[in-house]
Amino acid sequence: MRILVFNAGSSSLKFGVFEGARGEGGETRQLVKGAFERFREGACAFALEIDGVAERGEAPHGDLGAAIAAVPGVLAQHGIDGIEAVGHRIVHGGAEFATPAVLDAPTLARIEALTPLAPLHNPANLHAVRLAQAVWPDLPQVGVFDTAFHLTNPPRVYSYAVPAAWREAGLRRFGFHGTSHKYVAERAAQALGQPLARLRIISVHLGNGASVCAINLGKSFESSMGLTALEGLVMGTRSGDVDPGAFGYLQRQLGLGIEEIEQALYSDSGLKGLTGSSDMRDVEDRAAAGDAAAQMAINLYAHRARKYIGAYAAGMGGVDAVVFTGGIGENSASMRRRICDGLDFMGLRLDFDRNQSVDLAGRAAPQIQSYGARVAVLVTETAEQLQIAREVAAHLSRPEAEVRPIPVAVSGRHVHLAEDSLKALFGPEYALTIAKQLRQPGNWAANERVTLVGPKGRLENVAILGPLRRRTQIEVSRTDSFALGIDAPVRDSGDLDGTPTVRLIGPHGQLDTDGLIVAARHVHMHPDDAQAMGLEDGQMVSVRIGQGERALTFGHTKIRIQPNAFTEMHIDTDEANASGIGPNWVGEVIEMEAHLGA
Amino acid sequence: MRILVFNAGSSSLKFGVFEGARGEGGETRQLVKGAFERFREGACAFALEIDGVAERGEAPHGDLGAAIAAVPGVLAQHGIDGIEAVGHRIVHGGAEFATPAVLDAPTLARIEALTPLAPLHNPANLHAVRLAQAVWPDLPQVGVFDTAFHLTNPPRVYSYAVPAAWREAGLRRFGFHGTSHKYVAERAAQALGQPLARLRIISVHLGNGASVCAINLGKSFESSMGLTALEGLVMGTRSGDVDPGAFGYLQRQLGLGIEEIEQALYSDSGLKGLTGSSDMRDVEDRAAAGDAAAQMAINLYAHRARKYIGAYAAGMGGVDAVVFTGGIGENSASMRRRICDGLDFMGLRLDFDRNQSVDLAGRAAPQIQSYGARVAVLVTETAEQLQIAREVAAHLSRPEAEVRPIPVAVSGRHVHLAEDSLKALFGPEYALTIAKQLRQPGNWAANERVTLVGPKGRLENVAILGPLRRRTQIEVSRTDSFALGIDAPVRDSGDLDGTPTVRLIGPHGQLDTDGLIVAARHVHMHPDDAQAMGLEDGQMVSVRIGQGERALTFGHTKIRIQPNAFTEMHIDTDEANASGIGPNWVGEVIEMEAHLGA
Repeated sequence: MRILVFNAGSSSLKFGVFEGARGEGGETRQLVKGAFERFREGACAFALEIDGVAERGEAPHGDLGAAIAAVPGVLAQHGIDGIEAVGHRIVHGGAEFATPAVLDAPTLARIEALTPLAPLHNPANLHAVRLAQAVWPDLPQVGVFDTAFHLTNPPRVYSYAVPAAWREAGLRRFGFHGTSHKYVAERAAQALGQPLARLRIISVHLGNGASVCAINLGKSFESSMGLTALEGLVMGTRSGDVDPGAFGYLQRQLGLGIEEIEQALYSDSGLKGLTGSSDMRDVEDRAAAGDAAAQMAINLYAHRARKYIGAYAAGMGGVDAVVFTGGIGENSASMRRRICDGLDFMGLRLDFDRNQSVDLAGRAAPQIQSYGARVAVLVTETAEQLQIAREVAAHLSRPEAEVRPIPVAVSGRHVHLAEDSLKALFGPEYALTIAKQLRQPGNWAANERVTLVGPKGRLENVAILGPLRRRTQIEVSRTDSFALGIDAPVRDSGDLDGTPTVRLIGPHGQLDTDGLIVAARHVHMHPDDAQAMGLEDGQMVSVRIGQGERALTFGHTKIRIQPNAFTEMHIDTDEANASGIGPNWVGEVIEMEAHLGA
Repeated sequence: MRILVFNAGSSSLKFGVFEGARGEGGETRQLVKGAFERFREGACAFALEIDGVAERGEAPHGDLGAAIAAVPGVLAQHGIDGIEAVGHRIVHGGAEFATPAVLDAPTLARIEALTPLAPLHNPANLHAVRLAQAVWPDLPQVGVFDTAFHLTNPPRVYSYAVPAAWREAGLRRFGFHGTSHKYVAERAAQALGQPLARLRIISVHLGNGASVCAINLGKSFESSMGLTALEGLVMGTRSGDVDPGAFGYLQRQLGLGIEEIEQALYSDSGLKGLTGSSDMRDVEDRAAAGDAAAQMAINLYAHRARKYIGAYAAGMGGVDAVVFTGGIGENSASMRRRICDGLDFMGLRLDFDRNQSVDLAGRAAPQIQSYGARVAVLVTETAEQLQIAREVAAHLSRPEAEVRPIPVAVSGRHVHLAEDSLKALFGPEYALTIAKQLRQPGNWAANERVTLVGPKGRLENVAILGPLRRRTQIEVSRTDSFALGIDAPVRDSGDLDGTPTVRLIGPHGQLDTDGLIVAARHVHMHPDDAQAMGLEDGQMVSVRIGQGERALTFGHTKIRIQPNAFTEMHIDTDEANASGIGPNWVGEVIEMEAHLGA
């Protein structure tokens, strides 16, 4: 599938043509890389790269409209045809756009309504979409959102601790650079030869804008930009984190208002505010020549980045790989070194020579950690347009699927025991007795019960499900976890590494074991149903339950295909209580989250 | 020495009487604990505890003045006399007050000038000082500042990346709760039986206000409150960290101004903003009963605290102990558990039973980590008033000392080699040759030179000083470290654990070794000089060099007493360049930093 990608700003248009396999997997190649920049009266700068041949010069286009209209001619001149879709970078998709979206009129109206969240960027993006629709009226135009990747952030991460009225007015964290962080995480997993879904990655994007993203088992867990692109790291001209009390102080001491302060935080802060220059190369040279302000700025920049790495490792319960990208992340060996030094305590240590000799040609992603270090450290170029092309192709290639109703069942809290736990709780020779067969074949509820104990309280009479498993697993609701006083993570059954410890008490004895989880929503599915609905094992879907005003949609629900499975969705008691779901409800899959090639 | 301590707010007066050994060491005991609270028309609540006997009731005092005037009567009634000094908690000492200060008229004027930094707190504190001076005109009144402990924070920590004009107007990070964090760190070191100066401690103060402090080798390195007490953790009614872009959004969407936003961030945010209640006990109970907003608030609260622990461990290059204090930190086993879960990756793991059964009676500081965990975790009550009493006693007990001039010498970059490094660089049988004896007896410069290499550049022809040492140590200036591109920490000679690696090249070969430092300023001192000046080995002093307008003061300079030492202050080339110091300059000790009892 051949895709034209646009990234439109207020004074520039970048574009690319990509060729990739339709649907999942397969490599995506860049055929054309182009840019019209610095629009002025009837002219702009122009750069083009095709087949490794680069040209540069002036072009007679004074604005975005003229530049977009010129693209077909540029492509025709170089024999590039057969474009099947146009992809657009859209900065802000708010809380609505978790996946790419075909840009029809209702969708454009929804994006337009998000303008208050990105008053500068979204209007420029939308303008480009409308211009492109005029030039290519017959091609699908698809938007890919910078914020979308971060919509998997949990409420503890995306919420500010502010009054309810403000939160209702839309004040929350979003995060940006999502397309870059997603690409970089996938590139790192590929380079490490491990599935993204098993890795905890910290992506450090250090360009003129800069952000850090924690990617936990393939999903964005947290990133350093928030409601706006001001929060987080120190950037070229942006401040990053600042005490919210600074506004009152600046008003009282210097008579400044919100607009003046905000303007300066965006444009006259960061490296520029500290040194007068927003260019890190310049700042590094000054520092080496003895400029104390430049030295301090570099220390501050690195210190903030290092703290985010520590914080995000803590947030995810550890980190397997740190990836540097963006102009500074890719090119400054000394900044990478400065950020990573002192992180040995978490198993992260750079190799002197590998860090010095990074070569990124051909989209390489070299590893630069010391031999034997627990945390991998990689460097790679980011490729937002390529990622946009991938997502557009995947979105347009989703299969049409049959809709089949899925029964919904509510799981109460329960325990799966391993043999050693059974012995500790019930005695060395004990065997569980079957009380009742469950609908999933081979599974049953036992007559025996156990008690769970946490720092806040205890839960008595908790059911045991058989047969025995290799590892003990304790599944509770979110509310149960608060009654125990233990922060249980939402996990798939069986995914128990790094889960917290809880005390189990049985008639024979007690034990402290890890394995406490809140079970992630999932659908057990028979292979025949899966085939009819076009679903694969492990795929994430949204399921709508009920109709009309009472309808509820559960996002991020995992399909689990097993031979002989009884097709059924499992939710926990909190989810059932919140939604008022009773016996005999059914749901249907309404949205599939895009599968993307590696 | 018997000391009366006041902590005055706008609607309350807390006080205590403490008895402790004059000067260093020795235990400080609390004789009286009292409070007048909730002032209203001619009345307030009153609480008193003496010798384990508590009384509570009403008192006929409607304001701070009446309450302070009533204190002598209360003490006399219980036979407490012999007060020798009055200590006052002062919230904001700005960048000026690094130590306690006797509150004479010029000092009070300097504190008054800091009012813009603490418009609510400092005026109340100063009012109490003036009232107490009227009641006890003959006793020394000493101020102890909440900010003082954090004045050791380096510029990378205390600076915001904002325009220079704002930084010149005083916009910087200060940090609060300093007296609490200092006490807690000392208490933890004592409980661990290790010197505070060898520990990296993270103090987590979770009360109605809340902050985290990284205490690196005895000094505050960073804390989570900044210019104001808004920044950092989520608190009872304060927001903690918020995107600075929120102000513009709230203005455009809700028409709010700076004052309204600030007011709400102080009073209607935090736990209260998320749940309606600012009391964590209440929020925990609601969460266990299934209240989703309370569950989210607890998750958010813990997540932010956990991130700060990770960030500060990264900032210090590791952590030896985490200490919980404040109402929530002392009493909520489930919150401690929730914050610490998932930090195994940095060697931190709680013990189930020890965390459940914390008993703090008698100022205990129990350890609650698992056996074998690398990071100690402690819980202890904070004791700000006791710490204030200690500091007042120490400040008033400083000895009068003779002033002797100290010659100043400038150290260029140099290397001390260990035997294995010498062999690697110069060959297995090589011995260094002496070029010149140095003024410190037994030390000499060698004829041989080495080259240093870092990710940014190299330094050729670096001097080697003899004799050989047990460990290789490379001393460079701050500017040298930027030329190399390595962030070298400021350290005392010989204190090399966790220092970064640099490459050394000699005629025979090369090696990568840790031990790269920027040498901390220090004074080599002969025991006779030390005795005359009343100084001890390891003591930190300020040294003034030059006179009048050209005078420069170097703070935090360490006294190193050695038999036969040639008394001389060593500064590096950056310090010399910055200060224009040439040959034959002399300095004098002008201030001793207080020694405090354990």
